Amino acid sequence: MAELKNLTKRSENYSQWYNELVVKADLAEQSAVRGCMVIKPYGYAIWEKMQRQLDDMFKATGHVNAYFPLLIPKSFLSREAEHVEGFAKECAVVTHYRLKNAEDGSGVVVDPAARLEEELIIRPTSETIIWSTYKNWIQSYRDLPILCNQWANVLRWEMRTRLFLRTAEFLWQEGHTAHATREEAEQEAVRMLNVYADFAENYMAMPVIKGVKTESERFAGAIDTYTIEALMQDGKALQSGTSHFLGQNFAKAFDVQFLDKENKLSYVWATSWGVSTRLMGALIMSHSDDNGLVLPPHLAPIQVVIVPIYRNQEQLAAISEKAEAIAADLRKRGISVKYDNADNKRPGFKFADYELKGVPVRLVIGGRDMENNTIEVMRRDTLGKETVSCDGIDGYVAGLLEEIQKNIFEKARKFRDANIRIADNYGQFKEIIEEGGFILAHWDGTPETEARIKEETKATIRCIPDGFDTTPGVCMVTGKPSARRVLFARAY
Amino acid sequence: MAELKNLTKRSENYSQWYNELVVKADLAEQSAVRGCMVIKPYGYAIWEKMQRQLDDMFKATGHVNAYFPLLIPKSFLSREAEHVEGFAKECAVVTHYRLKNAEDGSGVVVDPAARLEEELIIRPTSETIIWSTYKNWIQSYRDLPILCNQWANVLRWEMRTRLFLRTAEFLWQEGHTAHATREEAEQEAVRMLNVYADFAENYMAMPVIKGVKTESERFAGAIDTYTIEALMQDGKALQSGTSHFLGQNFAKAFDVQFLDKENKLSYVWATSWGVSTRLMGALIMSHSDDNGLVLPPHLAPIQVVIVPIYRNQEQLAAISEKAEAIAADLRKRGISVKYDNADNKRPGFKFADYELKGVPVRLVIGGRDMENNTIEVMRRDTLGKETVSCDGIDGYVAGLLEEIQKNIFEKARKFRDANIRIADNYGQFKEIIEEGGFILAHWDGTPETEARIKEETKATIRCIPDGFDTTPGVCMVTGKPSARRVLFARAY
Repeated sequence: MAELKNLTKRSENYSQWYNELVVKADLAEQSAVRGCMVIKPYGYAIWEKMQRQLDDMFKATGHVNAYFPLLIPKSFLSREAEHVEGFAKECAVVTHYRLKNAEDGSGVVVDPAARLEEELIIRPTSETIIWSTYKNWIQSYRDLPILCNQWANVLRWEMRTRLFLRTAEFLWQEGHTAHATREEAEQEAVRMLNVYADFAENYMAMPVIKGVKTESERFAGAIDTYTIEALMQDGKALQSGTSHFLGQNFAKAFDVQFLDKENKLSYVWATSWGVSTRLMGALIMSHSDDNGLVLPPHLAPIQVVIVPIYRNQEQLAAISEKAEAIAADLRKRGISVKYDNADNKRPGFKFADYELKGVPVRLVIGGRDMENNTIEVMRRDTLGKETVSCDGIDGYVAGLLEEIQKNIFEKARKFRDANIRIADNYGQFKEIIEEGGFILAHWDGTPETEARIKEETKATIRCIPDGFDTTPGVCMVTGKPSARRVLFARAY
Repeated sequence: MAELKNLTKRSENYSQWYNELVVKADLAEQSAVRGCMVIKPYGYAIWEKMQRQLDDMFKATGHVNAYFPLLIPKSFLSREAEHVEGFAKECAVVTHYRLKNAEDGSGVVVDPAARLEEELIIRPTSETIIWSTYKNWIQSYRDLPILCNQWANVLRWEMRTRLFLRTAEFLWQEGHTAHATREEAEQEAVRMLNVYADFAENYMAMPVIKGVKTESERFAGAIDTYTIEALMQDGKALQSGTSHFLGQNFAKAFDVQFLDKENKLSYVWATSWGVSTRLMGALIMSHSDDNGLVLPPHLAPIQVVIVPIYRNQEQLAAISEKAEAIAADLRKRGISVKYDNADNKRPGFKFADYELKGVPVRLVIGGRDMENNTIEVMRRDTLGKETVSCDGIDGYVAGLLEEIQKNIFEKARKFRDANIRIADNYGQFKEIIEEGGFILAHWDGTPETEARIKEETKATIRCIPDGFDTTPGVCMVTGKPSARRVLFARAY
């Protein structure tokens, strides 16, 4: 079986293991367009489960969905001074709106007569087009708050791309809210970070550290960027979701004012927040092993697979009757089940394939099981097998799925906790950073020192974390005063 | 109330009524980008209900979702000879991938150094990029069928746009399937047309005529295009969904062959099928009236609104307790309910607003209702009011919602049926077409005659319909033989 899929081991080459796994588990592949991926049906099914859960959580916190244009007038990007620095660089530019047949009959060419007066940019993020719209929606405090989210594709021209982790086009959701007061907007930014952390931990089974970004890692145009940071198995951090308090920057850039209760004109306060298909990369790298994907039951498209082992058609018929009854009982509990009785693949092939695809629980029924009223249960997280009675198997499996969900999280949490270390001087920092993981260290608060550390060690400040040690100290590099330890890591 | 919203009457100016209604009911609006719309939260909520239902129906018929790139290499469009004629014209062309700061400090300009070697087109439809992908997915008959759908945005540069009906960017789903045999692909194309018809009639409450397009109205690259055609209240037809049997055209263009069971190489057979946010326009124009939207309960984001009428806070408290209990009972039945106790709007304003928004059932509780244990029920479709007992109100409303769903459909069906007429000569045809509606008439089967009719009457052949009279006759224009009557109309 191992040779069938021939997956590189994590210990040999983690990066290659990831690239192979994404393709072999049928999650995604490169397309004919540089940097743009095809998300294959199995990968998309996981993304759909993520979307559905996040969407429910957004709606439960009062948000509604809307849709804004794909294209943004070039001039919009220049309206907010910092935003343009961050986003008006590597993006796809639409300059023409028509093709025509080539005169030499060789195909189609761009029609030079169809040049746009103003070029349009494929959205790298939608603050500008949305705030130009909000201007018409907001006159008075009665129009506030606006709590909109959109599920959309965005595009940022990336030079080096990796499936899910960094692609030119990616799918995401972007929330854009408008508020009457600073306090309310700040609360919203924190509320949505907590929604992301809840989702990451309770659905993705991925422990995260919440915190706030330093100035140089902030979203372009934000006053504060809140982040959740996760640790991958290779010791690199992965920023998994961000929520921005934008102050009045975009309201001022697009002149969005409202009459408050005292009939006074004020600029509107804003937030934006987003997670993307990058979470697919985080999910894969958090839990998977050398046999393939390990999916948390809460996000697995197939939670249970049932495989029959039989000598002849007569035996298959008897096994199928029992398996279908078990599948029906499981489905009644809301569990997604696949009964795989395909006769053109051997059981061993199926076992390897479902391990590769990360199906959390595998049930196998053979001839002896039929005699004994038993079934073999294999859990994907530990690969542990046991034989149990068929009586009450649905309840047993339901419980097991929750246990797997918890176990995957606990395993990731222990690994993460074991890899948060403290460095008290720069030499120590440089040693530890080579081993990977998070490092809590003192920093003098300046972008210059931050840049120097990044240049010399490839480590960045992931965030000023919530909690942990908040005692002041001295910067490990410059010896200047440090307000508190911040969280460093090398990152995706 | 009427002046509050000031909606143009349908009889005065149908087109203006539609444009105003879309904006006033908060469904959509024009954006800063020519031809691209903003779908507002209330409009998007209806689209989400459509999406969810269609997605369930696609999955119930064995389809899975996937995602393919937004951008298509220009050369791909030229691969299929007819496809290029249809789609490689009015589309958005990406020529550059970077902006830079203007030297005069005036903003950002396109960086001439960042010109793409091959221009990329924003997908107007995805056959080409998908079939270039399927080439890698298909080797043998075991890899077939592939039954993929994608929910996506597409862009076609339209000169004259109208919200939902014709916009440059629009949202849609596009199914793309691959099959081993011609028969299987043809069956798939018909199956999906039936899914669309089922959705249109049982969810949108919009009767449709199924049929097949003539050669000149076919999708560019299809062998057969199946369609569902609906009739709007102004007597114009609206093509509401199409399903294409593509033969082996795209398989040949992208060299997609498979080894069949006899180990022989054959080209793969294809279908594609799609519906778009255009359905929002169809939904609005099928049922709505001079007071605003009329939504079928199966797609209404808010199915029931409860409005209290009160003299003081004490009375409001008592009414609210009762209203909340009723709302809870309705929600237990899966009905979406809004209790609107906002105290900054008068009841009359609320009534007009929910009528405008098409909420199917309005419940009103006032002081006398409290004394009598009654409630006033208003149904949006007929605007009929009655006062009923609060006992069993949840069951009553549940039944009423189904009755409204049926009634809206029946009303539209009667209107449609009364507007399918027969023309036996061209003079009669020209008279009837001025009155609107469908016309069944004989045609000689040539594109020339079809073009002449279109030029002279603005009517097109909507389809060669399933059913109706299939007796041969003579063409109303040329007197040449006609195989059967076909369905004409002026159309959106």
